[in-house]
Amino acid sequence: MHYAAPIADMRFALEACADFWSLRERYRDLDEDTLAAILEGAGALAAETLAPLNRSGDQAGVILKDGVVTSAPGFQEAYNAFRQGGWQGLAADPAYGGQGLPRALALAVMETVHSANMSFGLLPMLTLGAIEAIEQHGAADQKALYLEKLISGEWSGTMNLTEPQAGSDLGVLTTKAVPRADGSYAITGQKIFITWGEHELVPNIIHLVLARIEGAPAGSKGISLFIVPKFRDADGSRNAVRCIGVEEKMGIHASPTCTLAYEGATGWLIGAENRGLAAMFTMMNAARLNVGMEGVAVAEAAYQKALAYAKERKQGGALIIEHPDVRRMLMTMKSKIQAGRAICYATAVAADAGDKAREDLLTPIAKAWGTDLGVEASSLGVQVHGGMGFVEEGGAAQFYRDARIAPIYEGTNGIQALDLYGRKLLGDRGDAMQALIAEGRVVAGSSHPKLNAALDALADATAYMLAAPREDAQAGAYAYLQLAGDVVGGVLLVKGGARDANAEQAALLRFYARTVLARAPSRLAEIKLGAAVLRSEDFAR
Amino acid sequence: MHYAAPIADMRFALEACADFWSLRERYRDLDEDTLAAILEGAGALAAETLAPLNRSGDQAGVILKDGVVTSAPGFQEAYNAFRQGGWQGLAADPAYGGQGLPRALALAVMETVHSANMSFGLLPMLTLGAIEAIEQHGAADQKALYLEKLISGEWSGTMNLTEPQAGSDLGVLTTKAVPRADGSYAITGQKIFITWGEHELVPNIIHLVLARIEGAPAGSKGISLFIVPKFRDADGSRNAVRCIGVEEKMGIHASPTCTLAYEGATGWLIGAENRGLAAMFTMMNAARLNVGMEGVAVAEAAYQKALAYAKERKQGGALIIEHPDVRRMLMTMKSKIQAGRAICYATAVAADAGDKAREDLLTPIAKAWGTDLGVEASSLGVQVHGGMGFVEEGGAAQFYRDARIAPIYEGTNGIQALDLYGRKLLGDRGDAMQALIAEGRVVAGSSHPKLNAALDALADATAYMLAAPREDAQAGAYAYLQLAGDVVGGVLLVKGGARDANAEQAALLRFYARTVLARAPSRLAEIKLGAAVLRSEDFAR
Repeated sequence: MHYAAPIADMRFALEACADFWSLRERYRDLDEDTLAAILEGAGALAAETLAPLNRSGDQAGVILKDGVVTSAPGFQEAYNAFRQGGWQGLAADPAYGGQGLPRALALAVMETVHSANMSFGLLPMLTLGAIEAIEQHGAADQKALYLEKLISGEWSGTMNLTEPQAGSDLGVLTTKAVPRADGSYAITGQKIFITWGEHELVPNIIHLVLARIEGAPAGSKGISLFIVPKFRDADGSRNAVRCIGVEEKMGIHASPTCTLAYEGATGWLIGAENRGLAAMFTMMNAARLNVGMEGVAVAEAAYQKALAYAKERKQGGALIIEHPDVRRMLMTMKSKIQAGRAICYATAVAADAGDKAREDLLTPIAKAWGTDLGVEASSLGVQVHGGMGFVEEGGAAQFYRDARIAPIYEGTNGIQALDLYGRKLLGDRGDAMQALIAEGRVVAGSSHPKLNAALDALADATAYMLAAPREDAQAGAYAYLQLAGDVVGGVLLVKGGARDANAEQAALLRFYARTVLARAPSRLAEIKLGAAVLRSEDFAR
Repeated sequence: MHYAAPIADMRFALEACADFWSLRERYRDLDEDTLAAILEGAGALAAETLAPLNRSGDQAGVILKDGVVTSAPGFQEAYNAFRQGGWQGLAADPAYGGQGLPRALALAVMETVHSANMSFGLLPMLTLGAIEAIEQHGAADQKALYLEKLISGEWSGTMNLTEPQAGSDLGVLTTKAVPRADGSYAITGQKIFITWGEHELVPNIIHLVLARIEGAPAGSKGISLFIVPKFRDADGSRNAVRCIGVEEKMGIHASPTCTLAYEGATGWLIGAENRGLAAMFTMMNAARLNVGMEGVAVAEAAYQKALAYAKERKQGGALIIEHPDVRRMLMTMKSKIQAGRAICYATAVAADAGDKAREDLLTPIAKAWGTDLGVEASSLGVQVHGGMGFVEEGGAAQFYRDARIAPIYEGTNGIQALDLYGRKLLGDRGDAMQALIAEGRVVAGSSHPKLNAALDALADATAYMLAAPREDAQAGAYAYLQLAGDVVGGVLLVKGGARDANAEQAALLRFYARTVLARAPSRLAEIKLGAAVLRSEDFAR
C-alpha cells in the first residue's frame, strides 16, 4: 500500500489544536526542529518499511505450529528497524534508556505506524502498556529486570485480561495464583484474545496477567496483577505458558491473537495484592488512547487510498473527485480525521501536562469516537472505490476489515460510554466536563454559532446525565459520548484555526460545522431517550 | 447459521404497513391462507436448506479452473430444491409457467433467501432480472425460447454491464456487436463483475449483454442489449463466452463474480437498436429493489444472531441483553429493519398496483436506504458480540463482510441519490414526492408529532432540491435520500400500527420516532450544505 505521513495535518492538530507547546516548560530540550525531525523519521519508517508489508501481511497471516507462532514475511526485519530506531522508548523513562519525550509526540509517531500497518502497530502498543504498568507499579528490582529491555524493544509485552467467561466483566475471572516459598506465584488458567501473545520477533515476551490469589475475595476486589515472562529471568528457562490457539479473525491478520494456557507458570506480583484491576486500568488508559489513535490512523490510511483513487478514476467523462457526492465522502473522512486526531493528541497533551481530570475525561471519548471513525471512514473508503472497494486486490477492503476490531478491544465502545458517564461524569459531578465546556465557549466566542449551539446541547446533555436516574442515563450514554466527541473535535478545530490561519483547515472546519456539529440537537434527543423505550420491546422472538 | 423467517414481522410489514391487500382486486385467487403458506414454505426452505450452507459456502468459496466454476459443496442440492419448489417463477407470467403472483410476495420470499444465504440469493435474483427483461422487451420467439426455462429455474440469467473502464458510467462501454447475415450479432469484449456469470448449477446460462453495434452513435445513445446464451439455442453448441477470472472478494464468497470474455460470441438483439440502456433500466429497477431487500435481509440475519447471542451471553452477572446499551443496539437494528422491510414491500406493492410514479420514486430509496441499513446493522451485530464478533467462527463477521457490497452494486448509493434527484424529483417537478408527503400527513394525523416534524423537514427539503442550482442539489442528494427513507419508513410504521395494534411493533415505532425521525432537522442542514463547501477543500495533498 501507499502511505505518506500527513505531517502538515499532524502538526496542525498537535501544535495549533492540541496546544502541544504548552508543554514547553516541561520539555525544555524540545524544539520545533526536533519535533519535525521525529515526525519525518517516523513517517519515513511507516511509509518505507511498514506500509509495504500491510497487504502481504494480511494475506500471509500468522502460523501456529507446536506452540510456535511464525509471523508474516518481512515482519522480523521491520521490527528490527523499529527497534533499532529507538521508537519504542520515545516517551519512556530516561533512567532506563527511554528518551523522556512527551507522550503526545510518541502518540503521533504511533499514528503513522498504525496507519501504515495496524497489525504491526499492535506489538509496540502492547509493549508500551507493559512499560507503563511496570514504570508505575513495579518494584525497584522489577524495573531493573524488565524496563530497559522493554524500552529498547529487545523484549515485547502483553496484557492478559480476558478469559472465555470474562470479557467486559473481569470480576469473574478464574485464573489462579498460588504463592510459592520463594515469593513467586504459580499461575494457572487460560487467557484468550491475547494480542501478540506469542511470536518469535523478540527473544522474550513479558506477560502482564490478571489472576486471583488463592483465598482472595470474590469479584473485582480479589484480582491481582502478575508479571509472567516467557523465559524466566532467574535461570532463563522456558516458563509454563503456551500458545494453544490463534484466532481466525476478520482482519488484522498479521497480528497473532492468542489463547495462552498458563499451567503453573512462574509469576511475580506487581503492585499490591488484590489491587490488580487498578494497576491494569493505568495500563489500559494509555492503551485506550492508543486504540482511539489507531481508529483515526486507519481512517487516515483509508482516506489516502480513497483520495488517490478518486484522483485517477474517471467516470462520466471526469475524474470521480469532481462528483459532489464523492467529495462529500472524502470531506466527511478528512474533516472527522482531523477532529479525531486533535482529540487524541489533546488527550495525550493533558496526560503530559499532568492534567489528570482532563486526561481521564477525554480518554473514553478518544477511544470510542476515534474507533467509530475508523469504521465509518473505512466504509466510506470502500464506497469511493465502487466495485473495486469490495475486491481484496483493491486494498480498501482490508482497512474496513481491520478497523472493525478497534471499537471492541480495550473495552468496547459501550463500556467507554459507561465509563464516561459512571466514572468520569459522576466521579466529579461533572466538574471536568463543565470546565471543558467553559473553555469551549471561550474558544467559540461569538463567531461560531454552530459550535455554540453544539456546546449548548452538550451543557444541556451534561445536566441531564447528572440528574437522570442511572438506567436512563445509561440508555443515553452512547449518544452522550458521541456528542461530547463531536463538540470537543469542533472546539479543537476552531482553536487550531484561530492560532494558525490555513485555508485548507478552515474548509474542513466549515464542513465539520455544517454536518457534524449541526447534528448536536438530534443527538440531544437520543441522549434523552430514556430506558423505558428500551424496555418496551420484549425481544420475545 | 441459525435463521428463522420472521413471519409475523414480515406479515405486519406487508399487510399492515405496505397495504398488500389493496392488490386484492388484481389477484383474486390470493387469500390470507395462501399468503401464509407461501411465506412459511419459503421460510422453511431458507432455514433448513439455505442457512446451513451460509458459513460453509463462505469458507469454501468458488473455484475457477480451465474456465469451469465449481460452486461450494451443497449448492447444487440447494439449488435443485429451490428450483423444484417453483420459487423462481412466483411472480412470472403464467403463460410461460409462472405463478402470476404479486411481485411483493415474491420479494418477501426473496427476503428469506437473502437472509439465509446472500451468496445463493444472487443467483435467482439475477435470473429474475433476465426474466423481466425478456418478458418486457423480448420478441415472441425470444420469449418462447427462453422464458419457460428461466421461469422454471432450469436455466439461470445474468446481467453484463460493467467493463473495466465503464462502471457507473455505462456510456463509455466498448463491447462490440457486429451484425451477421443470419440476423445474429458477433459480440466481442470483456465484462467484469458478472455475478454468477459462470457456474455448473444449471445446464445453460442466459447472458444479457450491453454492447455497441458497429457504427452506433457514441455515448449512452449507442448501446444495445443482447441475449447471449452460454449454449447456442440453434445447435446447442458452446458459445464463444468464457470465464477468465473470478474476483477475490471481501464477502459473498460463495457467489462467483466473473470476468467474462466474449470473443465473437453469438448474440441476438433484444428490444430496439441503441435502446439497450432503457431496456437495462427496466431490469435494473427490479434488481435495485431486490438489492435493497437484500440489505434489509442481511440486517435481519445479523439481528437474529446478535439477539440470540445477547440472550445467552452473561457479563457482569446478567445476560448482556439486560444492558441498556445492548438493547439500544438491538432496537436500532430491529426498528430500522422493520422500516426498511416496509419500504421495500411498499415499493413492490406500487409496482404490482401499476403505480409507476410511486414505484420509480421509491426504488432508489429502497435500494440505498436498505443497503445502508445492511452495513449499519451488520456492524452493530458485530459490536453486540464483542470480541467474538471479530472472530470468523462467531459468524457475525460474515454478515459484515457480505453486506458491504450491497451499497455498491446495481448502481452505487451515490448514484441512487442522483437518480432520486435528477430522474425522479426533477422528472415530475416533485409531484410524486409531494403526493407521498401528503399521504404521510394523513397517516400522521395529529398524534405523531415527530413524524409530522420529519414530514415538514422533507417538504422543506423537497422545495429546496427543486429550486437549488444543480450542483448544490447534488451536494445534498445523499442526505435527501436518507431523509426520504427515514420519513417513508416512519409513515409506513405508523400506518401499520394504525391498522394492526401490536405492542411489539408500537415499541419499535416509539424507538424509531425518538431516534431516526428525531434526526430529520439535522438531515435538513446536511441537505442544504451547498456545493461551495465541498469545493473549498482542494484535496491538493
